[in-house]
Amino acid sequence: MLKLPQSLERLIHELSKLPSIGPKSAQRLALYLLKKDDLCIVELSNAVANLKKDVTFCISCHNMTESSPCNICTDEKRDKTLVCVIEEPLDAHAIEKTGKFQGIYHVLGGRLNPLEGISPDKLNIDDLISKVTYEGVNELILATNLTLEGEATALYITNQLKDQPVKITRLARGLPMGGNLEYTDEITLARAFEGRN
Amino acid sequence: MLKLPQSLERLIHELSKLPSIGPKSAQRLALYLLKKDDLCIVELSNAVANLKKDVTFCISCHNMTESSPCNICTDEKRDKTLVCVIEEPLDAHAIEKTGKFQGIYHVLGGRLNPLEGISPDKLNIDDLISKVTYEGVNELILATNLTLEGEATALYITNQLKDQPVKITRLARGLPMGGNLEYTDEITLARAFEGRN
Repeated sequence: MLKLPQSLERLIHELSKLPSIGPKSAQRLALYLLKKDDLCIVELSNAVANLKKDVTFCISCHNMTESSPCNICTDEKRDKTLVCVIEEPLDAHAIEKTGKFQGIYHVLGGRLNPLEGISPDKLNIDDLISKVTYEGVNELILATNLTLEGEATALYITNQLKDQPVKITRLARGLPMGGNLEYTDEITLARAFEGRN
Repeated sequence: MLKLPQSLERLIHELSKLPSIGPKSAQRLALYLLKKDDLCIVELSNAVANLKKDVTFCISCHNMTESSPCNICTDEKRDKTLVCVIEEPLDAHAIEKTGKFQGIYHVLGGRLNPLEGISPDKLNIDDLISKVTYEGVNELILATNLTLEGEATALYITNQLKDQPVKITRLARGLPMGGNLEYTDEITLARAFEGRN
């Protein structure tokens, strides 16, 4: 019986653990690397090994940063009474690119998902609630994703804070730029009608 | 401006060099790894770094192996006069799984592709021709892929060997198992008619 060399088998095994990479893709990636020169392989290996070296999480907003607290939380020009709640660190990058937000962020680190065992205590929610309760937050923008889990997370946070004197908002829902009525799903279109201005 | 930590940026950059992984997938993979424990990261990094450790290529058939010559070329039960020409090492694994082939392999290491600069001298073709000429090969099965490049490669080899007393065959072409006439392309169907038995 023909067997693949052990080191190749091991890389295929490791790669196929990654999300959206099945055994066939893993095989293809491993064979691609096998044809590459040693430098390329060493660079990838080092990049993986050193991944966590520069990455830490901000003690205040839980965002990914090189030094804690992060440069948004320490920026005196940012409005500390306006907090944008997001699921993942990259969401902050997407929002920063718009240049429209001058407050600070709070990263939940995921979304509620009972099926995957993600309960409120697995997310940075307690911390958010004490921030709102004790640090004088005026407005909380719940910018979780518009998925079932994202909406449930937003609802949960809203319920937890219903006795606090804080204004809770969500991002506007409607047609995206370049959106075509014909191809827009009913829920988006219904929301666009409700929110017309 | 919010920037991703440098070590994360570097991994995203390295991952996005891989085939079929764009910048967004690379970002997703890197963030997935960031959430994993150190052991998982070290395992992947080592698997990449040690990839070439156990891999060598058989001096005779150019297949990937742990020791050269490979265990198929040294197996006395295999028929050395029957040579199956394949593009890539994994093709041999697919054929071995059928259990139908008792000859030896010859791995070309790719397929002719002038647009990508893959000319005959980049493949193990000279070596194949001298094997056929001097080592008493009776039958050469050209099992290149049924793509434009695979067919061109098979045609090129056939032309190079037209003065040699060797029987040259190709794998049968026709409907795959589970094939549905309605959804079969015309070329496959035409070939299935031509080769009916």
